[in-house]
Amino acid sequence: MRFNGRVVEGEWIGTRALHYGDGVFRTALVLDGRVIDRELQIAKLASDADALDLDLPDPDALNADIEALLDAGASGVLRILLSRRDSGRGYAPTTRLCDRWVQLKPLPDHPRERWSQGIAAGWSKLLLGIQPRLAGIKHLNRLEQVLASRGWPDDQHEVVMCDAEGRVTCGSRSNLFFVIDRILVTPDLGFAGVAGMMRDKLVRLARETGIGCEIGLISPDEVRHASEAFATNSLVGIWPIRRIGSLEFPAPGPLTQALMRDLNHPWSGC
Amino acid sequence: MRFNGRVVEGEWIGTRALHYGDGVFRTALVLDGRVIDRELQIAKLASDADALDLDLPDPDALNADIEALLDAGASGVLRILLSRRDSGRGYAPTTRLCDRWVQLKPLPDHPRERWSQGIAAGWSKLLLGIQPRLAGIKHLNRLEQVLASRGWPDDQHEVVMCDAEGRVTCGSRSNLFFVIDRILVTPDLGFAGVAGMMRDKLVRLARETGIGCEIGLISPDEVRHASEAFATNSLVGIWPIRRIGSLEFPAPGPLTQALMRDLNHPWSGC
Repeated sequence: MRFNGRVVEGEWIGTRALHYGDGVFRTALVLDGRVIDRELQIAKLASDADALDLDLPDPDALNADIEALLDAGASGVLRILLSRRDSGRGYAPTTRLCDRWVQLKPLPDHPRERWSQGIAAGWSKLLLGIQPRLAGIKHLNRLEQVLASRGWPDDQHEVVMCDAEGRVTCGSRSNLFFVIDRILVTPDLGFAGVAGMMRDKLVRLARETGIGCEIGLISPDEVRHASEAFATNSLVGIWPIRRIGSLEFPAPGPLTQALMRDLNHPWSGC
Repeated sequence: MRFNGRVVEGEWIGTRALHYGDGVFRTALVLDGRVIDRELQIAKLASDADALDLDLPDPDALNADIEALLDAGASGVLRILLSRRDSGRGYAPTTRLCDRWVQLKPLPDHPRERWSQGIAAGWSKLLLGIQPRLAGIKHLNRLEQVLASRGWPDDQHEVVMCDAEGRVTCGSRSNLFFVIDRILVTPDLGFAGVAGMMRDKLVRLARETGIGCEIGLISPDEVRHASEAFATNSLVGIWPIRRIGSLEFPAPGPLTQALMRDLNHPWSGC
């Protein structure tokens, strides 16, 4: 293999992640040498891998990979990627064995107002293709997210993506929650979209604290009648949404504020 | 970055091909040190790249990469991959610049009967998601093809894939042509699927030789009434199809045979 004219070598060259996006990944927050929600992240990695007929690698090996990145007090964004092992057979997946990739990247530098005053979102013009077999999985085929992330105005932080049948689905890098008729609702991800670890955690937290949370089909028209909206992911916890296109929301609204407090995420609790 | 526990380094680590499948590729046949249909392949690479807002790299550099693989008389499968250059900004594509990957892999060892007696195909259970913005492009998000390539019986060589609305679209690694009511038809790829270089070449060849070829919407029911069927790609040229599920076709049929002769592909002409 040659990369930009230079010979590159290694076992990784045939990786199906590079050639087909045949793998899954997770992005986790690392603060002071500690991976936040580590067990939940690994559990989610395992269930996503299984959904692509992949086995989680030996847990000791994966743990050793991660520990090797966590020098005393390191902070950053941990990316764990599992790719189906190459068997030289073209598209046909002939093994459940994975190769492991881990990487620690610098922490993003988000202004504090994104938590205290909320973020601004637009509506994505790109509609997500409907593929129930891949929906919800955090796999490596992410061109739709790439295309949806182009050309945002400077004051926009996220886009709300609908699927080809008009269902509100998720942000480009977050899951979405709305308060509609005093009920917390997050989109059903059985048709398109990515189900983040933080989404699961929020659904569970809401139910545990008696708020109740429904997973359902949400139309743009229902979003128009929402009283609160927020976005979630592993890195930021909860970002209240103050605007989607021309729609405005209190940010954070009362229920969002209660969840931010109870979530106790290192960044969104304050 | 660590790969299976070992530190790996290089400019390529952040490649968006690995992390998002943000790139395009081509597969070309190399025989005796010559890339078959080289100009057509590069032209197609350029138009696919442009469809993802990517620029083709400096042609001299790309040519030098390819030449470096073509040792005196080398034969094999050339894989050219272009990935958007990393800019450390997450999904957002902030550049049209590409990194270049080239690789020469061994020739596949297909039995001659696949040309002389045709191949057997099944119907894929997986329906292709509809995404007009990506349809036709030979990009690196290929999980649908991976899933469709699982679990074939030993005597099956391809699957016919329909999109979510039931339109016959393409094979997992080939384009499809049918003779329906004496007219050659190939599916419109504006909704899903990959438009191969050989498909373009065949459409042009048919039109030049007075056969006429339509690009249109094809239902499974119309396939049932086809008198001939064949699959195309850069490596094999034309493979007559003798069976799709329980449907049988003459292989090669008379029109297929004429096109195989006129195509003059190193493998499918004989």
